[in-house]
Amino acid sequence: MESSRIWTAALVVIGDEILSGRTQDKNVAQLAAWLNVQGIRLREVRVVADREEAIVEAVNILRARNDYLFTTGGIGPTHDDITVDAIAAALGVGVVHHPDALATLDAYYQTRGGMTEARARMARVPEGATLIENRVSGAPGIRWGNIFIMAGVPHITAGMLDRLTGTLEGGRPVVSRTIGCWVAESEVADLLRTTEKAYAQAEGGIAIGSYPFFRDGRVGANFVVRSPDAANVDACIADLSAALVATGREVTDGGI
Amino acid sequence: MESSRIWTAALVVIGDEILSGRTQDKNVAQLAAWLNVQGIRLREVRVVADREEAIVEAVNILRARNDYLFTTGGIGPTHDDITVDAIAAALGVGVVHHPDALATLDAYYQTRGGMTEARARMARVPEGATLIENRVSGAPGIRWGNIFIMAGVPHITAGMLDRLTGTLEGGRPVVSRTIGCWVAESEVADLLRTTEKAYAQAEGGIAIGSYPFFRDGRVGANFVVRSPDAANVDACIADLSAALVATGREVTDGGI
Repeated sequence: MESSRIWTAALVVIGDEILSGRTQDKNVAQLAAWLNVQGIRLREVRVVADREEAIVEAVNILRARNDYLFTTGGIGPTHDDITVDAIAAALGVGVVHHPDALATLDAYYQTRGGMTEARARMARVPEGATLIENRVSGAPGIRWGNIFIMAGVPHITAGMLDRLTGTLEGGRPVVSRTIGCWVAESEVADLLRTTEKAYAQAEGGIAIGSYPFFRDGRVGANFVVRSPDAANVDACIADLSAALVATGREVTDGGI
Repeated sequence: MESSRIWTAALVVIGDEILSGRTQDKNVAQLAAWLNVQGIRLREVRVVADREEAIVEAVNILRARNDYLFTTGGIGPTHDDITVDAIAAALGVGVVHHPDALATLDAYYQTRGGMTEARARMARVPEGATLIENRVSGAPGIRWGNIFIMAGVPHITAGMLDRLTGTLEGGRPVVSRTIGCWVAESEVADLLRTTEKAYAQAEGGIAIGSYPFFRDGRVGANFVVRSPDAANVDACIADLSAALVATGREVTDGGI
């Protein structure tokens, strides 16, 4: 049944700055949330260094086994921006200056000191690519087949994602609801397990995630129920809430 | 020369909550910073779902090609905590209850409602493992060969890392220094490239990272110079600063 097809995406985060701990990545969470609205699941993420062989390996494995592959980072004008060359190498195609990207950059830099060779580098794409509009700054994102090459700076990536909204085929978005409870998750582990099992045959499947926390000197947990089927999520949340209330605990809708 | 050996680590972040965008990962940056102090470089990170085959694949590839492998997440008491079973499967060993872990959990839960089967789950380890003390809550981390299995909750992981400080063999830590400049990185791309090239033969190598930003209506960039050799980092920073100043720009030590 076509409606139950699960569409997946992977993300390769490219950048020494993430692996050195200098920069806190924000693109994983941002892309994950955006993909979900498109009905696409983020299935795996790799963070790799600014090294061609690392990028090639990740790109070739992940593009083959997912419907879509996104990359973030390494598309600027400097020597450490090697994403385009590495992806072209992975694809076995050359690198060309895209005429529309050149025109866009030309216009963008007209009032910013003019075009230079370094700036023209940002018009380089793997041969056969199309562009993803960048509404925030000059250099566009790049699409090649099922690969989407995005900026590293999160608000620029956000603009590119915004441009792509509604253009990628997906399935039903995953619906999630959260409840919270001041309880050690170890006290309700059996309850969670049997509740999830009761929904094992539900349309699209159901997953219950348990996320403990320690706050104000007390332990608690949030329980997240996820499924493409909203009615099943509601039913499972109702069952779980009732079971927790039956043990004398209070349940907070939306999580604590 | 032994002193120039580069020690590497990989990290597998295990958890649907990261891939769904619900939770912002903090363990990558935390582990990266800690590893650097130990003289170990974080070379690659993978984020995988709570699925055994995904964990097995990542663990077996990454443990083979790095000196150390860390995992975070999935070691709690609930049904979605499958890290120990998955890693045991990857290693081809059984899962056993570690007696010391049982004793620790027993003591921890004595004043917290007592031991239960769910809580005893947190004493399960791949056969042959040793424990990593958890100074924050009950369940210990796990070491098996070059694999370190840590909590998903960042402050618990922090405690486990603290316990491991100074116990892992590493090389020279990478030293980094940052300067900032109100300049479009595209204007200094050539300068960065030639400066990095001038240090290509430096002991331990040098890498210059360029990180642009847009703030208060102006563009700028921070330049990070990294090498295990502090003297080379200082010299490179001095050269780069002088070259930027020579173009009439101000340079801010430590970055903007």
